Amino acid sequence: MTFIYRRRVEFAETDAAGMVHFSMFFRYMEESEHAFWRAAGLNIWESGENLSWPRISATFDFKAPLKFQDEFEVHTEMGTVTRSTIQWNHTVKRADVVIGSGSVTAVCVKKNADGSMKSAEIPPEIISRLRR
Amino acid sequence: MTFIYRRRVEFAETDAAGMVHFSMFFRYMEESEHAFWRAAGLNIWESGENLSWPRISATFDFKAPLKFQDEFEVHTEMGTVTRSTIQWNHTVKRADVVIGSGSVTAVCVKKNADGSMKSAEIPPEIISRLRR
Amino acid sequence: MTFIYRRRVEFAETDAAGMVHFSMFFRYMEESEHAFWRAAGLNIWESGENLSWPRISATFDFKAPLKFQDEFEVHTEMGTVTRSTIQWNHTVKRADVVIGSGSVTAVCVKKNADGSMKSAEIPPEIISRLRR
Amino acid sequence: MTFIYRRRVEFAETDAAGMVHFSMFFRYMEESEHAFWRAAGLNIWESGENLSWPRISATFDFKAPLKFQDEFEVHTEMGTVTRSTIQWNHTVKRADVVIGSGSVTAVCVKKNADGSMKSAEIPPEIISRLRR
Repeated sequence: MTFIYRRRVEFAETDAAGMVHFSMFFRYMEESEHAFWRAAGLNIWESGENLSWPRISATFDFKAPLKFQDEFEVHTEMGTVTRSTIQWNHTVKRADVVIGSGSVTAVCVKKNADGSMKSAEIPPEIISRLRR
Repeated sequence: MTFIYRRRVEFAETDAAGMVHFSMFFRYMEESEHAFWRAAGLNIWESGENLSWPRISATFDFKAPLKFQDEFEVHTEMGTVTRSTIQWNHTVKRADVVIGSGSVTAVCVKKNADGSMKSAEIPPEIISRLRR
Repeated sequence: MTFIYRRRVEFAETDAAGMVHFSMFFRYMEESEHAFWRAAGLNIWESGENLSWPRISATFDFKAPLKFQDEFEVHTEMGTVTRSTIQWNHTVKRADVVIGSGSVTAVCVKKNADGSMKSAEIPPEIISRLRR
Repeated sequence: MTFIYRRRVEFAETDAAGMVHFSMFFRYMEESEHAFWRAAGLNIWESGENLSWPRISATFDFKAPLKFQDEFEVHTEMGTVTRSTIQWNHTVKRADVVIGSGSVTAVCVKKNADGSMKSAEIPPEIISRLRR
């Protein structure tokens, strides 16, 4: 069950070395995750009352550069799921070339009235929909 | 009464043309405006109950490029002030070289419970502090 | 001859006020301009030997906010064309709601061996293609 | 030998969840690394003829949020050094609160005339200066 998100490199995403700035890949991974939610008929932004999904870890390994106007794909799969976390695994490709791969773990939190956050059980309905 | 904000160009702010991406200058102007508020002993983020300051217009004219690691200054002055808007005028300089100049107008709004916003009178205390 | 560029708001483009950061609209305008070039069968990044297109002025007026995951359009038209500059006029819309409108003027420059730039005549072939 | 880089959160760096967007921490780590080079009397951008320093891996673990206008520090140390790579270890702190920690590995490459890159031995002078 691999979801594929397609995108083109925009000029503001490049840096003076002539390639996409390395920090952008973390945004590409998040864009693909959010598109995965939408493809499952879900909206991460309205996933439950006072629920939010901050990231607790993120990693990426870079194999080849992306350049301005390159078309690329992010191949996204769910990895380990725990009571309150989802790991998302991503591979970025330009045609058959692997640009890099990485992983982002998000935690489901409940926001309290005072602004503090506490990890919460992921609603089972969300997991079953994301798995379909 | 010119406020001077000092900054260095970071790598992620450059683009594949080898210079700072033009959209960054709008961020530099905002950074200097927020530093101006702080220098006046104010906090734009807590300027009054439910008050917020979205931008209604922004303009910049580019004269010379900034490059990675360049040190530069934003010279910031208050321009026209109306009941609910403040115009901020900025000149960006690298030593004696004018990099460009621009203007951003912010409007004071009151956020309603339903999330909508309505322009509001700027608290007089804020204007008098910003003018000092 | 209006070109329409379609896009969705990504999370990293929002700010703590819960809407798209104002500087992003300058990126959206540039993305639409570059897509306009591609739709004309051109590539702004390879538009001629040593030619480049820095921006000399940019302006935007904000009417309504865009929020996370909003789908929007940038309606883009060529404005005034001179020997070495092209003005691009843009209107950003979410369905029938005008989010704002702006203008960006780019200048055609020739890069010299020493890294300096000098404004250059726009190749007539480029203008005729962009006009088609 | 810990280098400390000081910074304040700017508004454009926050997102609609009211905190710094997670991708920004990769920029903060890079800013601190570049400041470390400068503190050592070096310039990563002119570190040797045709040398460049793309990143081959990056990771960050998030412990607590940073918010608009927060002052924070990045504590940066050199980790493992190989023939052609330097690992940089970073901890982000707001006063005594650990916001998160991460690591970025950069590889020294030589750019060929055709635009391709090949990993290269790090000039010993650079390592000895960074170590001082």
